[in-house]
Amino acid sequence: MANLDSIFHGLADPTRRAVIARLATGPARVSELAAPHDMALPSFLKHLKVLETGGWIESDKAGRIRTCRLKPETTKAAEDWLGQQRSLWEGRLDRLDVFLNNLYDEGKNDEA
Amino acid sequence: MANLDSIFHGLADPTRRAVIARLATGPARVSELAAPHDMALPSFLKHLKVLETGGWIESDKAGRIRTCRLKPETTKAAEDWLGQQRSLWEGRLDRLDVFLNNLYDEGKNDEA
Repeated sequence: MANLDSIFHGLADPTRRAVIARLATGPARVSELAAPHDMALPSFLKHLKVLETGGWIESDKAGRIRTCRLKPETTKAAEDWLGQQRSLWEGRLDRLDVFLNNLYDEGKNDEA
Repeated sequence: MANLDSIFHGLADPTRRAVIARLATGPARVSELAAPHDMALPSFLKHLKVLETGGWIESDKAGRIRTCRLKPETTKAAEDWLGQQRSLWEGRLDRLDVFLNNLYDEGKNDEA
């Protein structure tokens, strides 16, 4: 499994996100992946390399044709990390809620 | 709202992810955020700047004390993008499932 640094670095570029979105619909040849992007092939291949290092894609070669595939477990790793932060945040809001409710109840008791 | 490039760039570093995880539990002063990290303050402030650009945090100053807060809507933007890729991927698996079931049914009809 790639580390979180390289997983999130993989997402920090529009070309790389477009490649992930394309591969989410199924495997594709490098030439097909490169076609929509207005850049030299070596530059595009660097983006694929970053995605491979980040654990987002894998590829194999049959003759002269290289085909890329998405590794969906990496989406899960990224979602898991974000979900953990969301839990911390929501836990904080829950505690704040309890605190404010207690404060409100104490206010009512004072009035009574 | 920050763009996805800077949102995901914000996450591509362990110090920055640690700051987000800390702020998910509540606001904190810059000095408190910096304390666990073994780096010079200017380097740490650069990380905070990247998080601010990425829409992850905001801060305000009272006297000489700067306090940082998490902007939870940015977690949602990152999760939304990942969720879209997951939907594409799961849609693909569903279509594959239908295709394989049809193939199986055709095979049974051929046998009958």
